[in-house]
Amino acid sequence: MKDKTEILDTFDNPNTERDYWIKHIAPEFTSLCPVTGQPDFATITLEYIPDKICVELKSYKFYLNSYRNDGIYFESVTNNILDDLVKVTEPRKMIVTAEFNVRGGISSIVKVEYSKQK
Amino acid sequence: MKDKTEILDTFDNPNTERDYWIKHIAPEFTSLCPVTGQPDFATITLEYIPDKICVELKSYKFYLNSYRNDGIYFESVTNNILDDLVKVTEPRKMIVTAEFNVRGGISSIVKVEYSKQK
Amino acid sequence: MKDKTEILDTFDNPNTERDYWIKHIAPEFTSLCPVTGQPDFATITLEYIPDKICVELKSYKFYLNSYRNDGIYFESVTNNILDDLVKVTEPRKMIVTAEFNVRGGISSIVKVEYSKQK
Amino acid sequence: MKDKTEILDTFDNPNTERDYWIKHIAPEFTSLCPVTGQPDFATITLEYIPDKICVELKSYKFYLNSYRNDGIYFESVTNNILDDLVKVTEPRKMIVTAEFNVRGGISSIVKVEYSKQK
Amino acid sequence: MKDKTEILDTFDNPNTERDYWIKHIAPEFTSLCPVTGQPDFATITLEYIPDKICVELKSYKFYLNSYRNDGIYFESVTNNILDDLVKVTEPRKMIVTAEFNVRGGISSIVKVEYSKQK
Amino acid sequence: MKDKTEILDTFDNPNTERDYWIKHIAPEFTSLCPVTGQPDFATITLEYIPDKICVELKSYKFYLNSYRNDGIYFESVTNNILDDLVKVTEPRKMIVTAEFNVRGGISSIVKVEYSKQK
Amino acid sequence: MKDKTEILDTFDNPNTERDYWIKHIAPEFTSLCPVTGQPDFATITLEYIPDKICVELKSYKFYLNSYRNDGIYFESVTNNILDDLVKVTEPRKMIVTAEFNVRGGISSIVKVEYSKQK
Amino acid sequence: MKDKTEILDTFDNPNTERDYWIKHIAPEFTSLCPVTGQPDFATITLEYIPDKICVELKSYKFYLNSYRNDGIYFESVTNNILDDLVKVTEPRKMIVTAEFNVRGGISSIVKVEYSKQK
Amino acid sequence: MKDKTEILDTFDNPNTERDYWIKHIAPEFTSLCPVTGQPDFATITLEYIPDKICVELKSYKFYLNSYRNDGIYFESVTNNILDDLVKVTEPRKMIVTAEFNVRGGISSIVKVEYSKQK
Amino acid sequence: MKDKTEILDTFDNPNTERDYWIKHIAPEFTSLCPVTGQPDFATITLEYIPDKICVELKSYKFYLNSYRNDGIYFESVTNNILDDLVKVTEPRKMIVTAEFNVRGGISSIVKVEYSKQK
Repeated sequence: MKDKTEILDTFDNPNTERDYWIKHIAPEFTSLCPVTGQPDFATITLEYIPDKICVELKSYKFYLNSYRNDGIYFESVTNNILDDLVKVTEPRKMIVTAEFNVRGGISSIVKVEYSKQK
Repeated sequence: MKDKTEILDTFDNPNTERDYWIKHIAPEFTSLCPVTGQPDFATITLEYIPDKICVELKSYKFYLNSYRNDGIYFESVTNNILDDLVKVTEPRKMIVTAEFNVRGGISSIVKVEYSKQK
Repeated sequence: MKDKTEILDTFDNPNTERDYWIKHIAPEFTSLCPVTGQPDFATITLEYIPDKICVELKSYKFYLNSYRNDGIYFESVTNNILDDLVKVTEPRKMIVTAEFNVRGGISSIVKVEYSKQK
Repeated sequence: MKDKTEILDTFDNPNTERDYWIKHIAPEFTSLCPVTGQPDFATITLEYIPDKICVELKSYKFYLNSYRNDGIYFESVTNNILDDLVKVTEPRKMIVTAEFNVRGGISSIVKVEYSKQK
Repeated sequence: MKDKTEILDTFDNPNTERDYWIKHIAPEFTSLCPVTGQPDFATITLEYIPDKICVELKSYKFYLNSYRNDGIYFESVTNNILDDLVKVTEPRKMIVTAEFNVRGGISSIVKVEYSKQK
Repeated sequence: MKDKTEILDTFDNPNTERDYWIKHIAPEFTSLCPVTGQPDFATITLEYIPDKICVELKSYKFYLNSYRNDGIYFESVTNNILDDLVKVTEPRKMIVTAEFNVRGGISSIVKVEYSKQK
Repeated sequence: MKDKTEILDTFDNPNTERDYWIKHIAPEFTSLCPVTGQPDFATITLEYIPDKICVELKSYKFYLNSYRNDGIYFESVTNNILDDLVKVTEPRKMIVTAEFNVRGGISSIVKVEYSKQK
Repeated sequence: MKDKTEILDTFDNPNTERDYWIKHIAPEFTSLCPVTGQPDFATITLEYIPDKICVELKSYKFYLNSYRNDGIYFESVTNNILDDLVKVTEPRKMIVTAEFNVRGGISSIVKVEYSKQK
Repeated sequence: MKDKTEILDTFDNPNTERDYWIKHIAPEFTSLCPVTGQPDFATITLEYIPDKICVELKSYKFYLNSYRNDGIYFESVTNNILDDLVKVTEPRKMIVTAEFNVRGGISSIVKVEYSKQK
Repeated sequence: MKDKTEILDTFDNPNTERDYWIKHIAPEFTSLCPVTGQPDFATITLEYIPDKICVELKSYKFYLNSYRNDGIYFESVTNNILDDLVKVTEPRKMIVTAEFNVRGGISSIVKVEYSKQK
């Protein structure tokens, strides 16, 4: 899977003095199961305290859309999204939660967190 | 964007001895996207512990309405509302949460806080 | 506004050894706006840890009803109810939350607390 | 109020042999009260059986947005929207329902219908 | 109980050619129980097809508020509201539904209808 | 089981000219299972078009309470309530719906109707 | 699959003069997929107008439980349940609705009806 | 009121090494008002960390049912249930929450807790 | 767009004597906007009265998945799905409802129907 | 009851440096009551911070299905599932919550936790 971070645009945090939370809820995430090739669906929730830069919303949508035809596991995709967004925005804190639709009668949630070392 | 703080009226806090919370939920906030000029919609929730003065509800409604034809980003408008209300009411604590409607399949929430230094 | 505390009846706390919570939710509170004279509506939630005495439910209903034709602000009525109930029942802890219906597109919540000094 | 029908674009109905329903739910409608100048908010639901042409979704959004700073009554705006869409799309059947937010403690719904004479 | 119809203002139906429905939902109705004097609470829903005139919303609010300190039974108040509104607006069709809050563990709904004879 | 109709009080229908619906929803009905003696619980919904008389609400509550320690089947109790209320109020139309809580993983609803012969 | 009708007990309809509805909602139905052997889950809703006899609730529970380890298709099991209950109770009308849980991202509902010929 | 603890059966905690929570939600509790004799209804929620023994579910149901015809106040019954269950099961921790249905327009919740002294 | 009907498998209707409804709700449909290339999302509900054959569920899932990377309009895709399923199963009646997610603040529903001529 | 741990497959945790939560919600668990032999139903929620390995989802489904015809108590099954999953995956933290359907008018929840000793 190629590097997707270049899809992500950013803009300057309008208020760097305050710690504050930004949250984007994206209920239209879809990728493919790496074993069966069948589509998976999830709601991806991104929450972060920006430091110097924020992620631009439209580019973030394109970033999520870029997984559409990738075969990737639940646990990997959630860690990947966090890694990419941490790399690009260097936030003070960041949480990515992925809620996957029912498969085999079971729904799954993966939640990963990052905190900048002080 | 001109100074909007003069729109805000206040009244004396009827009980300054107690720390207590006042919360105003305004689901009818609308402004314009600074890039496309298209309308944005949000629910603005204001929560605060008043110190000497409280914000008057009708003037607060007019204050929120004054953003109707302003082009302004999600992150900026939320920080602005907090800054203006802190300036006018000098509260002990204040939180502003803005929940924006879905754009490009993604809904966004910005939450900013203020605490008076003791 | 005359003293309403005499409307409130009490009974002995059946278990003074335990700290425990009693909660009464009253969704039928109504008073008048002191400016326009128009009716306001709220849900009043009373939560407390009784000490020696409890408030009797029927008299508490009559107490709330007694505001029906009083002109009084959101912040004042919530503080008043707490003051009156603290005076009459001398609880270990007490919280009054008033959730007012939408006015001018905005709904409001006022939450006040009391703790007995030990 | 100027003629808004020119904002509306159309496209050919892909299946004119069948009677079928298209429904667009727009929860972000806002106009102004003609008396007070204060903003009103509504959800506009458009339902129709197309005849030869359909209304293009993006232009319909711009059409609804064009009421943003118009002063107009609940009953009039609902009838206007139906009249404009009937004029432009000449549907077999069309229903416009406008659900207005609470004003003075009362929410209002206006529902108007059109049927092509055979 | 004095005649309340003079509280009601009206305006001309902007579209008399069409049969269409107007609905006003008022969840803040309160009157008194004629036996106990205790307050009753209800949601009053008015639905009608106007003929020549419509009821003005603010005056309708004042009309409902005028029952605040009247002692009147569930069945009577619902019939009264319909009678008064039929007298003042002479609609083509009208329905009044009153949903009363729980009393003695039982909630009650009264629904009355009127159709103009052709 | 003794005759329970004498528990029911009535009052004159305030508007005999109109056909209109009165509905009482009672979620606190309880009786006993005639086989096991264990309690059953149901919501009883009474809907009727009154003719000359209406059932008085408080006496109806006492009537329902009178089943508290009776052993009676779902189907029988629902038919009984309808029979008793038809006998006492001679309505134009009447429906009794009993929604029983889950027993053995299954919830049950019984719905009986009466129409006066013309 | 052996004949399951002998599991079903019945009792006499306490009111054969009236047409009335009995409804049993069973959210704990489970059988096996005839292809994969994996469990399927459904809510079975039985609605009927009894003629001379009613189905006894506990035996009906045992009847549904008897499918627990049977491999059977959605469409077949729903038709089977209706056939068995019609055979045993000879109702005036009967409807069986089976709502199956999500399989492969799709949930399914099968609804079958029977009316006695007059 | 006689001693009800003998109604309660117990079984050995299958895992005494772990602190873990067991919760039983009983929405079908009913007793009588000691003043009016009218029925009260509540949902009783029992939560506990068992020590050596657990309460057997069926006997707990019979225990709750035994209050059916007792006249007892909200605050007393909740404290009683906790006292009886603590006496019989000697838990590490236990919470009883009783949520009573609306009476006089007000619903009430009583919550009592117990912790074993170490 | 190539012919997709060959993806669809069928099986014999187990009960051709009865008219009965089968309903499949698929909330994970996604295709591409033919103008922007951006993904669209919808819930597709298929309801039909089978005649001689039924559609096999797994193949139906693959059929819906085959639209994943097709650029196609809301109105066209809904008509296409109906046309394909009618061609393959020749049902007595069939309805396809497509509920598309919010785009530009507006959600859309398209509903098409087919009835076999007798 | 035989050892079920061999049903469980695992895979390597893709990110062992981070503490993060994985949650699987399985609403289709069913086993048998050890006393009556009647089926019990529950939603099993598994939450854990993986250490070196994760549980594979399909094998976890088969693991849960393996209880289908076992007679086992609520408290035991919940402790068993935790024990088996701790044994196989050696997680940093793990919580199993079992929410059982209503039996005798009472629903039950059992919640057990494990933390690796450091």
